[in-house]
Amino acid sequence: MMRYKDRPENYKEMRLSPYKKEFQYSYVLGLFPVIELIDNLPEAIFRIVTSSKLSDSGRAVLAEKAKEAGIAISTDDRTIERLSPKENTFAVGVFRKFEGNIDPAKNHVVLVDPADKGNLGNIVRTSVAFNFSQIVMIGRSADFFDPHTVRASMGAVFHVSPLFFRSFDEYAAAAGSRTYYPFMLKGSPMESERPDISSPCSLIFGNESSGLDDSFLNVGKPLRITHGSGVDSLNLTVAAGIGMHWFSHAKNIF
Amino acid sequence: MMRYKDRPENYKEMRLSPYKKEFQYSYVLGLFPVIELIDNLPEAIFRIVTSSKLSDSGRAVLAEKAKEAGIAISTDDRTIERLSPKENTFAVGVFRKFEGNIDPAKNHVVLVDPADKGNLGNIVRTSVAFNFSQIVMIGRSADFFDPHTVRASMGAVFHVSPLFFRSFDEYAAAAGSRTYYPFMLKGSPMESERPDISSPCSLIFGNESSGLDDSFLNVGKPLRITHGSGVDSLNLTVAAGIGMHWFSHAKNIF
Repeated sequence: MMRYKDRPENYKEMRLSPYKKEFQYSYVLGLFPVIELIDNLPEAIFRIVTSSKLSDSGRAVLAEKAKEAGIAISTDDRTIERLSPKENTFAVGVFRKFEGNIDPAKNHVVLVDPADKGNLGNIVRTSVAFNFSQIVMIGRSADFFDPHTVRASMGAVFHVSPLFFRSFDEYAAAAGSRTYYPFMLKGSPMESERPDISSPCSLIFGNESSGLDDSFLNVGKPLRITHGSGVDSLNLTVAAGIGMHWFSHAKNIF
Repeated sequence: MMRYKDRPENYKEMRLSPYKKEFQYSYVLGLFPVIELIDNLPEAIFRIVTSSKLSDSGRAVLAEKAKEAGIAISTDDRTIERLSPKENTFAVGVFRKFEGNIDPAKNHVVLVDPADKGNLGNIVRTSVAFNFSQIVMIGRSADFFDPHTVRASMGAVFHVSPLFFRSFDEYAAAAGSRTYYPFMLKGSPMESERPDISSPCSLIFGNESSGLDDSFLNVGKPLRITHGSGVDSLNLTVAAGIGMHWFSHAKNIF
């Protein structure tokens, strides 16, 4: 169950301008991610625009899926050009922003102040791969709905429940009984710690530059991914991927 | 032992132009990665240029390290501006390109046609973290020495031996006795396979879009990282990170 932002009143004929964060809606660029959108969140869509350059086979797939979902398709090269001036984009989906409902029974991926849209989208893609469907963003997160984030996710944003909180405390008050695992350099080695898989878990990752602050040393079981001293830290998306992979296989490892 | 490209004859006074792939030398931008360069490959450096905006403390650290290594530093805002027009860069290191010597006794990371400089740099950073110091690039690899790659690696390019081969066969002829693990969707689950840690290994990853072609099904033990069906594949840097982490902890896991 998603909660959606309102559609603009004139959504059927409104002129579509390049994306801005304050919009109630956003765009997904490219045939494949548009299909991901139709398959997963058809009720979020309020328009699909195609380029006259879209291949016949692409148009046929899109038309069939849109028809099933009751969504109209228009062909409009000027709109495509305006929304995606630098690239060869053949299809654009316009969708209402959405927010999930927190599920205290599920595992969560929690991102504190992730700054980079590419990283955020990439982490969402990895989260879907490892069956973390609840993505919690805390504080000054990069824009989950920015077309860059959507693109980096390869459409995986449409497979997850995004959840937005102003602070970790606000999130923890809603998250139910669970084990928190903040990933930080001062944590204990992840590879030696048997995770408690009897309760849901939250894997918590900090900002690209600053990581998690020391207050997270008092939250749950802080972990670090054991690596050599040649680099100070791992890239955020790589660390998140290793953490999610490890936890998703933990019951076989330990 | 690295092998270095020749310095240009007039390297002391030559005008530095924006980077091109055909240069025998390249640039590293930013104080921290310049320090990585001095610490790890001082003999590769032929000039260090700083901005007049470099902080006093940054200048002091740089001056001390450069002095130890016998490297001259100049201050030249116009050169900095020319080499890094879009960013606030305070230090640039000019270094000769280099190539390592293959070590058949070591584990290798092998990249076949990696296309994206950011990914390549990021994978090098992860390789250093998990003690893979031999990075093999096969085919049409993104430019290891491009300043974008160097930046994405956070200076980790100066910790590894880069090795360049035209084809996998050419590489395999030089690589010595070892176990090859191509990462591909048709491989068997990595998490169920006890790696043979009695011999050195090569973890092989394909291009971002196309992966490894089916000929690699006949090479060593093809593996896939087990994940759910919500996404077709993992991002290359994430997959490489998970693979390297798994192998670096394999002797504890199995």
